[in-house]
Amino acid sequence: MTAAAAYAVADWGTSRFRLWLLDEKGDVVAERRSDDGLDISRARGFAETLETHLTGLQAPADMPVIICGMAGSRQGWVEANYVPVPADLTAILSGTVRIEGISRDVRIIPGLSQSGSAPNVMRGEETQLLGAMLARNLRSGLVAMPGTHSKWVELEEGRAKSFSTYLTGELYALLAGHSILRHSIGNATETVAPDHPQFAAGLELMLEGNRRMLGELFGIRAAMLLENLAPEGAASRLSGLLIGTEIAGAREKYGTTTKIALVASGAMAALYAKALTVAGLGFDIVDADDAVRKGLFVAASKLWPAATQG
Amino acid sequence: MTAAAAYAVADWGTSRFRLWLLDEKGDVVAERRSDDGLDISRARGFAETLETHLTGLQAPADMPVIICGMAGSRQGWVEANYVPVPADLTAILSGTVRIEGISRDVRIIPGLSQSGSAPNVMRGEETQLLGAMLARNLRSGLVAMPGTHSKWVELEEGRAKSFSTYLTGELYALLAGHSILRHSIGNATETVAPDHPQFAAGLELMLEGNRRMLGELFGIRAAMLLENLAPEGAASRLSGLLIGTEIAGAREKYGTTTKIALVASGAMAALYAKALTVAGLGFDIVDADDAVRKGLFVAASKLWPAATQG
Repeated sequence: MTAAAAYAVADWGTSRFRLWLLDEKGDVVAERRSDDGLDISRARGFAETLETHLTGLQAPADMPVIICGMAGSRQGWVEANYVPVPADLTAILSGTVRIEGISRDVRIIPGLSQSGSAPNVMRGEETQLLGAMLARNLRSGLVAMPGTHSKWVELEEGRAKSFSTYLTGELYALLAGHSILRHSIGNATETVAPDHPQFAAGLELMLEGNRRMLGELFGIRAAMLLENLAPEGAASRLSGLLIGTEIAGAREKYGTTTKIALVASGAMAALYAKALTVAGLGFDIVDADDAVRKGLFVAASKLWPAATQG
Repeated sequence: MTAAAAYAVADWGTSRFRLWLLDEKGDVVAERRSDDGLDISRARGFAETLETHLTGLQAPADMPVIICGMAGSRQGWVEANYVPVPADLTAILSGTVRIEGISRDVRIIPGLSQSGSAPNVMRGEETQLLGAMLARNLRSGLVAMPGTHSKWVELEEGRAKSFSTYLTGELYALLAGHSILRHSIGNATETVAPDHPQFAAGLELMLEGNRRMLGELFGIRAAMLLENLAPEGAASRLSGLLIGTEIAGAREKYGTTTKIALVASGAMAALYAKALTVAGLGFDIVDADDAVRKGLFVAASKLWPAATQG
C-alpha cells in the first residue's frame, strides 16, 4: 500500500460499492469502484466483500474503515438507526455502529429520519450533506442531491431541518428499461444530454404549467410511432419530464428565493444545472464525490484522531 | 360447438387474450381467456395461437373472426393503421385489415391516433369506446377507460374529438413489483380495496393540492420503516396516489362539469368510482367487458351480415 493512507472509507449502496483510502488530510491515496452493492454482497458475505476490496488496495489489517449508505439499512450488513431531524449533522458522527465479530474496526454511519405527516428517511446522503456543508460552509438554504432517490434538504442555522425525496432516477430506469417506453428508447438510456431539444421540451412542459407527468409519458411512445421520434430524443424527453417534475415540485414547495447547493457530479450535474436554470432557480455546484468523501473523512478523523500512517 | 354461434371475436392485447363466440344478437355463447398476449403469441405464431383457442371452443373452420387490440400493432400480427381523430367511430369498422395467407376470414380493427402538439395512440380501447357509445347512446362528454394505459376521450356530436393517456396501471405494476417499494408491498399488489383508508389518503393528497406524485412515492417506504405501514396499506396508498394523479390531471384538463362514462369492470370500476367521487366528478359505469364485446359484435355484424349459424 501507499505509505500515506490513514483511513479506508466506503459508500456502500444498493447497487454500487465505492472504497477510498485517504491520507490524514483527507486526500485520496487509492480508489476502488465496483457493482458489489447490497444484493451481491449479502449473498457473498459483507465482511468478505469488504476485505476483498481492501486487499485489492493493499490496506493493512488494522486500518479502520468507515461506511455510509444502505449497508446500514435493515437489508444491509448491520442496521444503524436513524438520527431524527431537525438535527445537527455532527450527531451522525457520534451515532456510528461498530461491526461486531471481526477484528478490524469497521463502523457504519446512521441515516436521517423524518417523522410526522411526511415520513422520510435517507442513508448515505447524510454523509454527503455533511461533507457539502463543511466544504462550502453552508448553514441555511436548500441542498439538492439528485440521484436514484433525489433528496432535497432544508438547512436552518447549520442544522438539517426537513427533507423530501423524489423517486426520479429510479423511475427513469424503470420507465426507460421496463415499460412500454423501452421500445422507444432501446439502448439510448444513457444518451441524455442537457442540450438536447427534447430534454428542454420535457422540462418546460413540467415547469410551465399544471401538467401531470403521468399524463405525458405515453406521448413519448406516440411520438415514436407517429413522428419517428428517435431513441435519443425519447430518452431525453423522458428525462426532461421526470427531472422537470422534480424541480417543479421543489419550486412549489420551497419557493424561488433561496440559492440551492446542487450536490452532483458529471452528467447528472449537467442535467440538473440545465433544469434549475430553466426553472429560474439559482445554484452552486458541489461535486458529489468530493462531498461524500469529505463527510466520510470527517467521520473517520473524529473517530480515530490518532490513526497512524499504516 | 353450440349451434347458435355466428362470430368469433377477440380482444388481443400485450399480455392478455380473450375470445368469445357470439350469436347473431351479440350474446355470449362461449368464452376463453388466457395469457397468450403478444410476446407469447409472436413466438408460437399468431395463426396457430388463434386456431388453438378456436378449436378449444369448437368453432367451425369457416367461422369469421374479428380482433381488436395490440395484435394490430407494429409488434403484433399485422399492422392495422390508425384512424386519426376527430373521427366518427364507424370509420374503424370500414378500416379493418384482413389477414392474408390463411383460409379463415380474420380481420383486425384499426386504432385511433392523434397528431399535433399532444401525439397519442390507442388500440383496443377504440372498440370498447364504440361499444360504450352504442350501449349508452353517448354523443358528447367524457369517456374514461382505466387500465394499464388509461384513456380519456372527449366526445363531441357523436365523434371522438381528442384523447389522452395516463400510464397509471403500468406505473403501478412497475412500482409495486420492481422499485424500492416492492419491499413495502410484497405480495399485496392485488389487495387494494376502495374503502382502505390509505387508498383514500393517497387520493386526497393528489386531489387536494398541488402535490407531485413523484415526491410522495418514497413516503410509502419511509412509512413502512418508521410507522410499520402494512403491505396492504402500502399497496393501497400507492394506488391512491397514482389514480389520484390521473383523476386530478383529467379534472384540470376537462373541468368538473361533464358527466363521465366510466368504462370499467370489477375491482378497477370500484377503485375509479371511489376516486371520481372523492374528486367530486359525476359518472355512470359502463361494464368494460360488455363494451368491448359490443364493439366487436357491431364490427362483425357489419362485416358479415349474412353469417350463418355454424
